[in-house]
Amino acid sequence: MTSAMQQLKAYQKKVIRLGEISSVLGWDQLTYMPPGAAADRADQETTIQMLIHELSVSPAVGKLLAACETEVSGLEPDADDVALVRVSKRDYDLATKVPAALIEELVSHSSMAYEVWVQARQRSDFSLFAPVLRKTIVLNQRLAECIGYQDHPYDALLNEHEPGMSTARLRQLFAELRPALITLVADIANATQVDASFMHGDFPLASQQELTLEAVRAVGYDLNHGRQDKTVHPFCTSFSRNDVRITTRYDEHMLGGALYASLHEAGHAMYEQGLPSELELTALCRAASSGVHESQSRMWENMVGRGGPFCTYFLPRLAHYFPGSFGSVTPEQLYRAVNKVEPSLIRVEADEVTYNLHIILRFELEIAMLEGRLDVDDLPDAWDAAMQEMLGITPPTDSEGCLQDVHWSGGFGSFPAYSIGNLIAAQLWNKVQTELPNLSASIENGDCSPLLNWLREKVHSKGAKLFPMDLVLHATAEPLNSRYLIDYLNGKYRDIYGL
Amino acid sequence: MTSAMQQLKAYQKKVIRLGEISSVLGWDQLTYMPPGAAADRADQETTIQMLIHELSVSPAVGKLLAACETEVSGLEPDADDVALVRVSKRDYDLATKVPAALIEELVSHSSMAYEVWVQARQRSDFSLFAPVLRKTIVLNQRLAECIGYQDHPYDALLNEHEPGMSTARLRQLFAELRPALITLVADIANATQVDASFMHGDFPLASQQELTLEAVRAVGYDLNHGRQDKTVHPFCTSFSRNDVRITTRYDEHMLGGALYASLHEAGHAMYEQGLPSELELTALCRAASSGVHESQSRMWENMVGRGGPFCTYFLPRLAHYFPGSFGSVTPEQLYRAVNKVEPSLIRVEADEVTYNLHIILRFELEIAMLEGRLDVDDLPDAWDAAMQEMLGITPPTDSEGCLQDVHWSGGFGSFPAYSIGNLIAAQLWNKVQTELPNLSASIENGDCSPLLNWLREKVHSKGAKLFPMDLVLHATAEPLNSRYLIDYLNGKYRDIYGL
Repeated sequence: MTSAMQQLKAYQKKVIRLGEISSVLGWDQLTYMPPGAAADRADQETTIQMLIHELSVSPAVGKLLAACETEVSGLEPDADDVALVRVSKRDYDLATKVPAALIEELVSHSSMAYEVWVQARQRSDFSLFAPVLRKTIVLNQRLAECIGYQDHPYDALLNEHEPGMSTARLRQLFAELRPALITLVADIANATQVDASFMHGDFPLASQQELTLEAVRAVGYDLNHGRQDKTVHPFCTSFSRNDVRITTRYDEHMLGGALYASLHEAGHAMYEQGLPSELELTALCRAASSGVHESQSRMWENMVGRGGPFCTYFLPRLAHYFPGSFGSVTPEQLYRAVNKVEPSLIRVEADEVTYNLHIILRFELEIAMLEGRLDVDDLPDAWDAAMQEMLGITPPTDSEGCLQDVHWSGGFGSFPAYSIGNLIAAQLWNKVQTELPNLSASIENGDCSPLLNWLREKVHSKGAKLFPMDLVLHATAEPLNSRYLIDYLNGKYRDIYGL
Repeated sequence: MTSAMQQLKAYQKKVIRLGEISSVLGWDQLTYMPPGAAADRADQETTIQMLIHELSVSPAVGKLLAACETEVSGLEPDADDVALVRVSKRDYDLATKVPAALIEELVSHSSMAYEVWVQARQRSDFSLFAPVLRKTIVLNQRLAECIGYQDHPYDALLNEHEPGMSTARLRQLFAELRPALITLVADIANATQVDASFMHGDFPLASQQELTLEAVRAVGYDLNHGRQDKTVHPFCTSFSRNDVRITTRYDEHMLGGALYASLHEAGHAMYEQGLPSELELTALCRAASSGVHESQSRMWENMVGRGGPFCTYFLPRLAHYFPGSFGSVTPEQLYRAVNKVEPSLIRVEADEVTYNLHIILRFELEIAMLEGRLDVDDLPDAWDAAMQEMLGITPPTDSEGCLQDVHWSGGFGSFPAYSIGNLIAAQLWNKVQTELPNLSASIENGDCSPLLNWLREKVHSKGAKLFPMDLVLHATAEPLNSRYLIDYLNGKYRDIYGL
């Protein structure tokens, strides 16, 4: 006789395999698919997504989960099977709470809104996008009501990306972070600027390809279970923990783009490659949240990749491929150059210090719109005012302002994960320094494995067993707080800028 | 209310989309998949194949088809919907006649047999493979009984690849072809040999990539709906008529391999790209048979690619990429070189004249084994004797003899399609010369579109509406016969060899 838990696992295996297959279709679409295949690919995706959806909301799963709850009721509360039932029930509730009609409306709105957004951004004409955004808000308000929440409708939306996180807690974290960053940015603006001129020049694509592969291999990305390709926007995608792929983009006149995009995506990829093999093909064998995912990519990109020890280790490789640019650069010069801070208009190009201000700005504005305190027509002005207040610059056009991100074509609540990731990364980074006092020396010698092993144990191998905030608490013996990110940024950048 | 035909089409759309998705997985596996992902990919494939199988044998489909038959009973016999019901019923019967247990046994036998075959061929030890082959025969005998046949069990196996073809008809075609080829091969062996030395040399991969892309574009392969990648074994795969991809292989010391593999696969691909758009996502929007498919690849590879006019047109491109090898070669010299005939041991490397003897040999042997006239233990001797009789050479090892092909690890009945393809190609080629008298001049000027348009009309746009033999009859106003292939080969090669 098959137990309910065995049935649950067989069912999840099928759904997860279909999800992996859908990811293969998505990867191919963005890497090698010929242009004329777009419509058929969309329909192939829909075919798979419909199968996944049918399986996910089937009432049989609800009954199965009830049987599983009875079956695991005698186990220890931290047993894997208990966690699996808990997470699976959360998934099922989320999938069944939202009526199919609303999901369809959201999907069709998003794809229409995306097209409008592309047009609006191209022409820098916010009036085109305004009615679409108004609809996005209404749909997200309805979505929040369906999902349900205790304190704030934004909690419901946030939950999809960051289980257990609340709007109140986020407001508190950002309230501490905001003034500290504004002060640091202003101080840096008044300091002597660093020289990053040698990061610009001639960097042929083929050499950048080899160099970035060396970089991701050096930090520990397993290319026997992964690969790197070229796309317009870099991403990481997983077809199982044994096949986790990254992409990067190349600018033949600027080296930093590809190198740090590769390290960022490798950070995501190493998380996926390190998920618990014993829980493979269950709902626990996945990242704890978007924020935890981002903590991994940002740590490898910034704390490691833009850190002094890695700059020292990797400089000879840069000089090997591009002797004209890096032949006479010192490790210290490289370190300063790749950490240049400059208030800029575009979030995805922002440095480590200004980045979180871009996120806080979006968080504040989307909450205000969701609450009805900010009218859509007033968004451009509100955006510009916030940019001026936080970064001291004003976008000359809405394309470089409130029209720059695709996110508001679809859902609300996804931006905070970027800053949550930075907060988590800084707190983990602080902890690992105390636990591995020789880490810097090790990285300077080209061995990042002590850090990777530590992350494997504290983060990757936990999968989705814990709520993200519990994961942080277990790993660092402290609840998530903003102090570590503030201290990290102040320490690093006041040193670089001689403040 | 939805008609039965509408339901049938909705059902087929889903099954076909799943098949396309499975092809994407297969393509990725052979092109870009990291080595460590093999086991997961196999399981992803199984997930999709099980979904397809469940849908294909569902009793609901049987009922639906019965309702469709009633619904189309008043239509003209050549109406698309009538053909669709006929072909769909044939598919359903084939899928349901064979018990699931036998299919499973065949699948698991094939994958085990494949591993054994790899070992046996590596060590050139037929005794390893013999027990596996014995099982292959028994399983194929049982398969034939399940499918059913009128005259010969081989008919049942043949039907899967070549609907409507019979063993008796094939024997007759081969009985005519066999002596004519043996005579031609013997005559060529006694003639002055052609010089193909300039086809060997130094041909860097990157230049071969560009050259082969030029070649496939020149014959009409649409790269807006396709692409070419590099694999160990060349193949063509389709993810819809809007995304048909080919692969080729490169030998940096020999040019012919990549060039003619590319043209061969482009021939397959142009067939898929030309399938009837109005029948998209139905059982009629596919090739008429393996043999018809092969007729397209062989025509573009051999009649066009190895033809005088294309040699004349394409020589300057060869000289452009490889001036050292082709700078002083004349079109006539190139034409003779790429048509060099030489009895050889390996089928996949055989020239146009000897190729069909390799097929006839396999056909005769597999029939003898299926009938029980030839014992497995006697296969190596029978193989060697046939090679000596037909080609005048004897394999020094079984690796270069009866162990060279993977086919007998799984099914019987797939070899004849290769020669059926050559027969169909020759008969179509003869016809198109009479209908398009300026074709040679057009190809010599680099314009292959008159031929492609003719094939689109006569072959591609028919999809699977007609039995292959009816397709040939409609296109050439004559039943398939061996005269055209015999005349084509005698005409071309007696001229080249001055016989």
